[in-house]
Amino acid sequence: MEHAADPSHPRYRSLLMRHRLEVAAEKGMLADSALIAHGRGEAYDYLLGEKTILSADFATKVALRCLKDATHPILSLNGNVVALAGDEMLRLAHLLDCPVEVNIFYRTPERMTALLSDLNERNDRLGLNVEILGANPDGEIPGLKGPRAKCETRGILQSDVLLVPLEDGDRCQALVAMGKTVIVIDLNPLSRSSQTGTITIVDEVSRCIANMIDSVNLDLPRQSDYIHEEILQAALDSIVGGMKDRFKTAE
Amino acid sequence: MEHAADPSHPRYRSLLMRHRLEVAAEKGMLADSALIAHGRGEAYDYLLGEKTILSADFATKVALRCLKDATHPILSLNGNVVALAGDEMLRLAHLLDCPVEVNIFYRTPERMTALLSDLNERNDRLGLNVEILGANPDGEIPGLKGPRAKCETRGILQSDVLLVPLEDGDRCQALVAMGKTVIVIDLNPLSRSSQTGTITIVDEVSRCIANMIDSVNLDLPRQSDYIHEEILQAALDSIVGGMKDRFKTAE
Repeated sequence: MEHAADPSHPRYRSLLMRHRLEVAAEKGMLADSALIAHGRGEAYDYLLGEKTILSADFATKVALRCLKDATHPILSLNGNVVALAGDEMLRLAHLLDCPVEVNIFYRTPERMTALLSDLNERNDRLGLNVEILGANPDGEIPGLKGPRAKCETRGILQSDVLLVPLEDGDRCQALVAMGKTVIVIDLNPLSRSSQTGTITIVDEVSRCIANMIDSVNLDLPRQSDYIHEEILQAALDSIVGGMKDRFKTAE
Repeated sequence: MEHAADPSHPRYRSLLMRHRLEVAAEKGMLADSALIAHGRGEAYDYLLGEKTILSADFATKVALRCLKDATHPILSLNGNVVALAGDEMLRLAHLLDCPVEVNIFYRTPERMTALLSDLNERNDRLGLNVEILGANPDGEIPGLKGPRAKCETRGILQSDVLLVPLEDGDRCQALVAMGKTVIVIDLNPLSRSSQTGTITIVDEVSRCIANMIDSVNLDLPRQSDYIHEEILQAALDSIVGGMKDRFKTAE
């Protein structure tokens, strides 16, 4: 990894995220498509200026309030999320006193084992005792086929509010159809997950979760103040604006 | 790879390109950053509608004319280019009667060997006899440090017109500074390579090279008709427009 040891480097965080993915890939935690998906995210984050925009900050706070007010909140984790923000996710789960559930689209026993053992190591290292679900999927998300439908009854299936960062569009839609409050974190405001989520945060996942952790004791806005279309439009405007600004600088 | 066997699938070409990268990765042809870089490109191509826009078609034809009129044209190939458009590049080199040169940013003997042997296999399979340079770098691009400066005297160093798809910004700049006509293919009109190239084609590399092959016997526009800023602006407008259109459809 080039330069990433120097936090003053302008691309420090971006290079740090790449490094986290490389480590995770070596541990067998990632699907083949993981790095390409990350690259797509990088393109959007670059256009957002690699910072949390105002509308995303607002959506983050609304989402946090929903999670705090939930009866059965849960944080759903896939390979890229564990790689990019595993520690942050466990810290947030600890603060919310809720479990996390490993729930991957391309489910293989090897990847599940790698992810569960990585999360257990993190739990120990951080001195936390967060419940980590996913090893014993005894339920299914209605409307999905094959291994991608699997989940735990005590986890995702009974949850009323879910955080699903970097989620597949089909699965996001199926969870919404179950009547759950689905909180999406996705850098592309045009993705199907962003469109279909109940609350969508257009932000980089580790930045977003760090913001949630920092906001956990603040007064938080209510879900009734969140207007989905406006939040997505604001993200799109930021991206388009960022593109034009960068072009100006480049010329 | 999902679905990619069916050419009628709307994402057939995109999935085919991923498959080509997977094969190349298995053969040791790619740098660690290759898949992430491809994902960034995918994000821009998605916004372009995964098609060749009018301004890119014009730039392609200007570029082709420059290559045909050159005294020492050369096609520079890195790992992703060989993976995504190795056959197309050899066919174009054959039509132009010019060599190709393997020229990679993160140069290791293993990757060079993997790329050269892959290209030799393609040459044989296609029944072509294109000269493949890169194995004996006896020259250096002024202004660059380390292995990334290396190139062949008979190839890149003596060339007057170069095609450098998916090129690093520093190297693109160094080649322009040598007074060469540098033709860039890059899906991001904001990248430093796109900005600094002599002629920039904002298009997916395999699509672009296929277009060049199809246009080789056409009447082609002259370089004096190419206005760099207008071509980049048109690409940016297409991306921004594509983003707004897709948002409308999604709503």
